[in-house]
Amino acid sequence: MAEPIDFYFDFASPYGYLGSLQIDAVAERHGREVMWRPIMLGAMFKAVGTAPLGQYPIKGDYSARDIAREARRLGVPLAHPPGFPHGTLAAARGFYWLMKSDPAKAKELANAFYAVYFGEGRDVSGAEDTADIAAAIGIDRDEYLAAIQDPAIKDQLKAETNTALERGVFGSPFFFVDGEPFWGSDHLMQVERWLETGGW
Amino acid sequence: MAEPIDFYFDFASPYGYLGSLQIDAVAERHGREVMWRPIMLGAMFKAVGTAPLGQYPIKGDYSARDIAREARRLGVPLAHPPGFPHGTLAAARGFYWLMKSDPAKAKELANAFYAVYFGEGRDVSGAEDTADIAAAIGIDRDEYLAAIQDPAIKDQLKAETNTALERGVFGSPFFFVDGEPFWGSDHLMQVERWLETGGW
Repeated sequence: MAEPIDFYFDFASPYGYLGSLQIDAVAERHGREVMWRPIMLGAMFKAVGTAPLGQYPIKGDYSARDIAREARRLGVPLAHPPGFPHGTLAAARGFYWLMKSDPAKAKELANAFYAVYFGEGRDVSGAEDTADIAAAIGIDRDEYLAAIQDPAIKDQLKAETNTALERGVFGSPFFFVDGEPFWGSDHLMQVERWLETGGW
Repeated sequence: MAEPIDFYFDFASPYGYLGSLQIDAVAERHGREVMWRPIMLGAMFKAVGTAPLGQYPIKGDYSARDIAREARRLGVPLAHPPGFPHGTLAAARGFYWLMKSDPAKAKELANAFYAVYFGEGRDVSGAEDTADIAAAIGIDRDEYLAAIQDPAIKDQLKAETNTALERGVFGSPFFFVDGEPFWGSDHLMQVERWLETGGW
């Protein structure tokens, strides 16, 4: 079996949301699995000297337009969460906790976070918000809330973010196909072609 | 006849080079003309608070890799000019001067600048460098060198850059299809689809 595709994203990233709705289907067409890896993109902004898109005049406005346009093209819901961007520590920690026992359920949780955040435009920054979403898909609320305070889980998210930075991840979504890096949901065509051809 | 596509680019932009090699064919498939509009991207960097890609750690390295990979995918030559990026005032002025009398020749000159700069990796920053390239495609060298010092031509480049900024251009290449903005050579698929469908 070929190596899984690494899919790095921040739950606060709308382009990450668009990527999340496409990458599994792309991988499946080529017999690949996808390893979802939420990260805290703030570390990348600091290392690279960039900022969240919305903070740039002109470029921020274009990006909002492009994100809405891409959502329409893909036929997926898009809503702008109030007070965007939010911190998404709790969501990312919850994901890694669940990964240890049930990877399929962890991906379901990630999809649920994104569906609420960018599909419905509701705040998912607080631990309680994320616990509500987890509970709605059958995860034990108390166990979830305890887990996201677990130092081992906190450390795992830090380690994933550091590893991503070392691998050259600087934005969301970011994909690796057999070690080859691709940035952006608008590079999925290249990802697909790389999977088809093995590179060029 | 439908409106021409506006194609904004900086001669110092490698993604602009990649865009320049594709946009006319995309437009032609849909019965459109392309209005090439070189600009000085420095004004955009200042307005938006960004910098040339190569100046960002990590992101700059990825971009260099992506540009080389895209050139291979498209089967076009790519060489890295020494001391990149250069100022490209002279090239942009020469283009606008020639546009007044011979738009087809102006596009040929733009292609020649890009071919030397990113196809062969030679410096095209100086007025004399650009005059050599102009002369090689049959343009009078002295007339060219005088024209790029003409205040009216200098003003035209400034005006084009200002208009671009007002229209929301912040990067290169940047396209407008019937007023709809698309940034990046990796958005040509969306440009093509917009031309096909009239928007979505």
